[in-house]
Amino acid sequence: MAKEADFSETLTTYLKDKGFVYGPEPEIYGGLAGFYTYGPLGKRLKNNVEAVIRKVFNSNGFYEIEYPIISPKEVWKASGHLDSFNDPVILTEDGKESYRADKLIEELTGIAADHFSDEKLLETIKEKNIKAPGGKKLALKIERYSLMMKTTIGKNIEAYNRPETATTTYLPFKNYLNFFRDKLPFGVFQIGKAFRNEISPRQHLLRSREFTQAESQTFLFPEMKKEWPAFEEAKKELLPLWTEKMQNEEKKPEDISLEDAMKKKLLKNQAYAWHLWLSFKIFTDFGIPKERLRLRQHHHDEKAFYSDDTWDLEVQLKSFGWTEVCGISDRTNYDLSQHQKHSNEKLTARTLEGKEEIPHVIEIAFGVDRPFFALLDLNYDEREDEKRTLLTLPPWIAPIQVGIYPLVKKDGLAEKAKELMKTLGNKYLCYYDESGSIGRRYSRQDAAGTPLGITIDYDTKEDNTVTLRERDTMKQERVKIENLEKILGEKLNG
Amino acid sequence: MAKEADFSETLTTYLKDKGFVYGPEPEIYGGLAGFYTYGPLGKRLKNNVEAVIRKVFNSNGFYEIEYPIISPKEVWKASGHLDSFNDPVILTEDGKESYRADKLIEELTGIAADHFSDEKLLETIKEKNIKAPGGKKLALKIERYSLMMKTTIGKNIEAYNRPETATTTYLPFKNYLNFFRDKLPFGVFQIGKAFRNEISPRQHLLRSREFTQAESQTFLFPEMKKEWPAFEEAKKELLPLWTEKMQNEEKKPEDISLEDAMKKKLLKNQAYAWHLWLSFKIFTDFGIPKERLRLRQHHHDEKAFYSDDTWDLEVQLKSFGWTEVCGISDRTNYDLSQHQKHSNEKLTARTLEGKEEIPHVIEIAFGVDRPFFALLDLNYDEREDEKRTLLTLPPWIAPIQVGIYPLVKKDGLAEKAKELMKTLGNKYLCYYDESGSIGRRYSRQDAAGTPLGITIDYDTKEDNTVTLRERDTMKQERVKIENLEKILGEKLNG
Repeated sequence: MAKEADFSETLTTYLKDKGFVYGPEPEIYGGLAGFYTYGPLGKRLKNNVEAVIRKVFNSNGFYEIEYPIISPKEVWKASGHLDSFNDPVILTEDGKESYRADKLIEELTGIAADHFSDEKLLETIKEKNIKAPGGKKLALKIERYSLMMKTTIGKNIEAYNRPETATTTYLPFKNYLNFFRDKLPFGVFQIGKAFRNEISPRQHLLRSREFTQAESQTFLFPEMKKEWPAFEEAKKELLPLWTEKMQNEEKKPEDISLEDAMKKKLLKNQAYAWHLWLSFKIFTDFGIPKERLRLRQHHHDEKAFYSDDTWDLEVQLKSFGWTEVCGISDRTNYDLSQHQKHSNEKLTARTLEGKEEIPHVIEIAFGVDRPFFALLDLNYDEREDEKRTLLTLPPWIAPIQVGIYPLVKKDGLAEKAKELMKTLGNKYLCYYDESGSIGRRYSRQDAAGTPLGITIDYDTKEDNTVTLRERDTMKQERVKIENLEKILGEKLNG
Repeated sequence: MAKEADFSETLTTYLKDKGFVYGPEPEIYGGLAGFYTYGPLGKRLKNNVEAVIRKVFNSNGFYEIEYPIISPKEVWKASGHLDSFNDPVILTEDGKESYRADKLIEELTGIAADHFSDEKLLETIKEKNIKAPGGKKLALKIERYSLMMKTTIGKNIEAYNRPETATTTYLPFKNYLNFFRDKLPFGVFQIGKAFRNEISPRQHLLRSREFTQAESQTFLFPEMKKEWPAFEEAKKELLPLWTEKMQNEEKKPEDISLEDAMKKKLLKNQAYAWHLWLSFKIFTDFGIPKERLRLRQHHHDEKAFYSDDTWDLEVQLKSFGWTEVCGISDRTNYDLSQHQKHSNEKLTARTLEGKEEIPHVIEIAFGVDRPFFALLDLNYDEREDEKRTLLTLPPWIAPIQVGIYPLVKKDGLAEKAKELMKTLGNKYLCYYDESGSIGRRYSRQDAAGTPLGITIDYDTKEDNTVTLRERDTMKQERVKIENLEKILGEKLNG
C-alpha cells in the first residue's frame, strides 16, 4: 500500500512536469479537487485513446452521436438520477471531515460496498472498526449526498449537467429508428463529458468531478440475443473470465474462448458475449497488456436491479491495484420504458414478428480518463541501471511519434532537420528539438514516450543517411532518408 | 429575407430527417431552445471538421490542451465575465415576450449593435421604430441578463460552466512555460464545450446555449509581432480584406496578399497578419469556397476595449446572409494581467533582453458549430431538373465517403460487396446498403453527401470490375477492384 502510494505520487508529479496532466485546476487560484487539465502531451494521448475507441466502434457498425451535456429536470427524474444518484457520506465525530462511506470501506478492507444499504454500511464500519484516514472517529450516521450538478436555463428552468452520457444516448431513440430505417439491431455510441459532484474526489483522474465517458448502446430485441451474427467471427478469441463462482471459490480468472464460455454456460447469450469481447478488444487495442486485464462478473446482489447481467473489465494498476475500467451491462428494456412512461412518447420498434415492442439495450460504458491513466501508470518505467526514465507507450498511442534532431544547429544541419520535419510531419506526430546535448534531447523524448528519434549529422550531408534510435532498446541504426517513410510505417503502425 | 427563412426551414427539416442535427433537445420532453444533438451523420461531419482544425493547428506548431468546463467564481471574476458577460434584454410592453435588443436591431436594420450601450440601443430602437417580430410594441427599457450558467461544487462552492474556452486556456500559463522550456512564442489551442444562457436562442446552431468552441492563443512579446518567421511562407497568399476604411467608403472587400497588406499598412504587423491567414486557411481547408468568405475589420468603436485590433471572418450563408464565423484578436497582455492581479501568481516570462514581462496574446476564436452549419447550408443542393437533392460536401469532410451496393442480394453479390466493405472500411468511411432499388440507394447517399458509390453486379463475378459512380456528376465508370484503392485515394483526398 505504502509503495503504491509512493508510486502514485511519483507518477502524479511526473505527469505534471512532462505536460500530461495539470491540476487540480484552477491551480493559480488554489485548485478545486477533482478538476484536471490535459496538458500538451496529455491531450494528444487522450485524442489517440479516443481515436482507438472510434475506430473499434465504427468498424463494428456503431454510429457516434453527440447529445447536449445539459438536460432539464424531467430527463433526470425519468432516469432515476434525481432521486437516487447520491453517495453515502459519513462525517467524523467532530463534523470536520466527510468521506464516502462505501469507498472508505473498500479502500480499508477491500470489500466492494457500492451497493450496500445505509444500514449495511454502518454495520460494516462498526464491525471492522473503520476510522477516518487521519485516525478520527466516525459519527455513525450516513447522509445521502446528491452527485448532480444543478443549473438554471432561461430564467427559471431547472436543469443539470449530465452525470453520465448513457441516458442522453437513449433520448433520441425515435430519430435513430428513422436513420436506421426501422431495422434493429443497431448500435450508437457517445464520447463526451459527464459531471459528478463527488464529496471527496481522490485517486487523481480515476475519480474526478468532471470526466470523459465513452458509452455504446446496442438496441436489440431479446430474441436477437441468442444468435448474434458477429459472434461467429469472434468466437475463438480468448477472454480472461472471472465468474461469480470462481470469485466465490477464490479461484483465479481463466482464459476461455467465447465459444467455450457459451458451451459451459458462463455467459448468457451470444450478443452479450460479443459485447464483452468488444470491450476487451478496445482495451487491448489501446495497448494495455492482456495479462493486466480481467473480466469480473458482478455478484448477483451487486448489479443494478434492472440489469440482467453485468461484468466489469478491470485493469491491474501499479498505483491502485485492480481497478474497474469498464462495465458491460444488459440493461434490458429498463431505460426506454422509463422514458416512454415519463415522456408519453412511444419508444417502440417492430420485431421480426411484426409486434411493437420496447427494445432492450446492451451497454459498454467506461471513462476515457481511466485507460488514459492506465497507459501512463503501466508504461512509466524508471530504469536505474540505464539511468533514465521512460514511457514505454505503444507507438500508435504515443503523443509524439518521432523526435527529429540536428546534431548541431550550424552548418546547415538545422535546415536539413527542419526539411525532414516538414515531410514527416504531414504523416506522423513529430517533434523538432535542437537545444541541448543530443543525449539530453534523447532522454527528454524517452520520458515523453516518443518511440523513435532521428538524428541529422554531418554524414547526412554526405550520404543522405540519418541515425534512427529506438526508445526502449536505445538501439541505433543508420538508414537512408529515402527509406525512412517505409521504415517508420513498419515500426509505428504496430 | 422571406426566401432565406424558407430555405432555413427546409434545411432544418432536412438535417433532422437525414440524421445530421436533432432538436431542440430533449425532443421527447418538449425540447429546450438552444440545445441540439449531432446525429449519426452530423457527428461524423463534426469530427471531420475538428480533424481539419487539429491538422492546421498541429502542423503550424500549436499544441492542444483540454481544460475543465467548470471553474469556480474567482476565475470568472478575474476574467470579467461575472460582472459584464450579459445581454441587453428588452421586453414587449405587455411583458410577455423578451428579446436581445442588439440582435433585434441587427436583424431588422443590419446595424451591428453588439457593442452599443443601453442608451444607444434604446435610441436606435426609437429612431428606427423597431417592434417585436410578432408586431408588439417594445417597452423602452433594457435589462441586463447574465449569460453565465451557475452551479455548485462540493457543498457550497460557487462555480460556473465556462462561457468560452479562451479564459481557461490562459490559466495554465505557468505550466506551458515549463513545457515549452521558457521560450516564447508558443501557441496553444482548445476545442471544447462552452455554455451561454441566451435569453432567446435563434438561428439554429448559430446561436445555441451549448456549443463547441475552437480557440487558439499565441503567447508572444510585442517585439516579436513585427518580424514573424512564419510570415515569410504565407506572404504571397491572398486574403479578402475588408478594412474599416473600405466599409466606411462602401467599397467591396479586396483580395490582397499579406505582403501588400503590410506595405499598404492595412494590417498592423506580421504576426497578426499571419494569424489572419491561418484562420482563413482553416475555413478554406474545411472546403468553404473563398468567394463565400471575407475578413472584416472591426470598427474602432466596435472592438473590445483591451483589443489592439480585431477582424472577423465572415461567411455568406444561404440561410442568414453574411455571418460572423471567426474572430481574430490581438488581446495584448490584458488577460494574463487580470489573472496575475487576481491570483497573485506571477504570469510573466523572460524577454529576449532578459526582462520579466507579461506576454501578449493573439487569439483565433470560433464556434465549431458555425463552419459545420455553413458546410451544410452551402452544399445543400436541390436540383429540380435532375429530380434529386444532394449535398455537395467535399470528399474529405463528408460523413460517408463511399457507398457500397450489391445490385441484388442473391447470387453471392451481397457477400462480394461485404468483402469489399471490409477492405475499404479500414481506410474510408464506408456505408453498405442492400435494400431498395439501386436508384433509391444512390439518391439516399446523394442526400447524405456521399461522394462515391460502388456497385457490385453480375459482371463483377466474371471480371472483377465494379461500377464507380460520382455523386455530383452522376458519371459512372467501370473500374477493376484491384485499382480501386488507388482511384479512391485520388478522388477522395482532394
